[in-house]
Amino acid sequence: MNADLIQPEMDRFEERLAQSVATDSPFMGRCVSYAAENRGKRIRPALLLLSARLCGEVTDAHIDAAVALELFHTATLLHDDVIDQARLRRGIPTHNARYGNEAAVIFGDYLLSCALVSASSDELAACRGTLISSARAICEGEMEQVFRRYDLTLSENDYLRIVDRKTAILFASACEVGASLSGADERSQKALYDFGRMIGVAFQIVDDLIDAFGSEKTAGKSLRSDIGKGELTLPFIRLLSVAAEREELAGLITPDAGPGGDSRLAALLERYDSLEYSLGVARRHVAGAKAALEHLPASPARYALFALANTIIDPNRFAAARAGASAASPGAR
Amino acid sequence: MNADLIQPEMDRFEERLAQSVATDSPFMGRCVSYAAENRGKRIRPALLLLSARLCGEVTDAHIDAAVALELFHTATLLHDDVIDQARLRRGIPTHNARYGNEAAVIFGDYLLSCALVSASSDELAACRGTLISSARAICEGEMEQVFRRYDLTLSENDYLRIVDRKTAILFASACEVGASLSGADERSQKALYDFGRMIGVAFQIVDDLIDAFGSEKTAGKSLRSDIGKGELTLPFIRLLSVAAEREELAGLITPDAGPGGDSRLAALLERYDSLEYSLGVARRHVAGAKAALEHLPASPARYALFALANTIIDPNRFAAARAGASAASPGAR
Repeated sequence: MNADLIQPEMDRFEERLAQSVATDSPFMGRCVSYAAENRGKRIRPALLLLSARLCGEVTDAHIDAAVALELFHTATLLHDDVIDQARLRRGIPTHNARYGNEAAVIFGDYLLSCALVSASSDELAACRGTLISSARAICEGEMEQVFRRYDLTLSENDYLRIVDRKTAILFASACEVGASLSGADERSQKALYDFGRMIGVAFQIVDDLIDAFGSEKTAGKSLRSDIGKGELTLPFIRLLSVAAEREELAGLITPDAGPGGDSRLAALLERYDSLEYSLGVARRHVAGAKAALEHLPASPARYALFALANTIIDPNRFAAARAGASAASPGAR
Repeated sequence: MNADLIQPEMDRFEERLAQSVATDSPFMGRCVSYAAENRGKRIRPALLLLSARLCGEVTDAHIDAAVALELFHTATLLHDDVIDQARLRRGIPTHNARYGNEAAVIFGDYLLSCALVSASSDELAACRGTLISSARAICEGEMEQVFRRYDLTLSENDYLRIVDRKTAILFASACEVGASLSGADERSQKALYDFGRMIGVAFQIVDDLIDAFGSEKTAGKSLRSDIGKGELTLPFIRLLSVAAEREELAGLITPDAGPGGDSRLAALLERYDSLEYSLGVARRHVAGAKAALEHLPASPARYALFALANTIIDPNRFAAARAGASAASPGAR
């Protein structure tokens, strides 16, 4: 991620984040330390701070908002990993694998409480509504996903609505809040909101593709978890809509599908070019995102946002995904 | 609970709570409806509103604060039930039993996000810190409890510190915030904080006693879950500190204790009067709580708070607990 432009601000962000989760409980402290050693890519804070820079100066309010968003996000990852019984994330054991489900759930709740602190500063009064509604949207998107497992009628539009809520709105809020706290006009705020929303959709599509086609070693996390629990992501939805083998697919995507179905699913995904189709949708979203920023003046910050958008559909991510596609094996679900 | 005095305010609270969790997601909506049909005893909102009334008038800010506290509390119950794999609460299936762990975790996160909305109103600026720090304290208390499972060195003081964080501070905050939003002076705020904190400790002790000694039918929830997962509550800590059979107890309280230990544990708890001892601690906390309010003028609100404190150690709750004590059977853990 090309974030050199905002490195000092990212450093301030890390410092403030560490302060906001500091605790005098030695037990909570262990989880805090483990999380600090294994931080994520910080895409959402980078989006917020680059949007801020594009429209003006980065202030303490921006840093607080970035901390709140990143804490929301981290809390949902912790809870996702408990729900999915995931053992690996970013190549290392998840919190639930390391400390158990109980500690992981409680630690997620703690981070949500800390997010609340960061979102509470007076300077954030005007954009607190945006921050909070994105946290609610994540839960609504995830809930729809859970309730529609194994639902073969899930359409591409249904999928995009779920992705919008569970991922894209938080990206969009990061960009919009960055702009609005810099005093940007309505049009620029809207442009950045649209930019964030579209790259958010692309980000989730590619994340789902890596789950479906990637190799665990390259991805650094547990894979093939989505379809294994009946969550239909874009390549499977595409496959169901075009494949002649729809009946057979219905038999493969059920809670009680026996072993051996994975290699057959992988073969069908390959035959119907589901990866290419899904990548196309992601690429169009990234193109649309960049178009949304066209009326804003060219600047190093805009360039960095474009670069960040490009990394989402970076061919290197797909190279890894493609390499893993033929390795999909029975039992990997 | 004697809350007739604040019935109109409790009605406003229920209305505001329903508004704050309203959603246009039909899937989230199912969880919201299920929660609305099976509401809790609303002790924390009642404490907040009675404290408000004791010190002045009940305002919209009080209602918002009560909603935030109740949502924090409900979210932690949802997550507790997932963690404990509890099947029953208040006599009906838990969210995780009804909709699965995923939905229950996500719904808890959603309620935390909604709590954030309620805590965000400008009128709550002065007491937001108190509200939030009680949410953090709950997580810290629960985390210590999880990390100290099967730790036979857990002392009564350790237990009281955990109880303080996971339960009593939220009770205390409810009372303090009620008073402070009514413009009460520092001394009255402090008195109500102390009152809430002490009845919070008593409440948790009795809750733990019902888990240890109650009958599932009377309690309306899954029981014998604490010691079954190595959580040492007051009667067991007392037993370990006075029983001659300490070695034997150490063998009974381990992750791999075989079946048959429950009836032996029940017999030892009975022999050493662990229930009576623990009740004594709870009663002393309630007495201390009432003493804390002595300097405040006698009024219907103070009377109602005393009555609420008394219900916590109501002999009827123990009658149920006692009736269940002899029924503790192998496999009930």
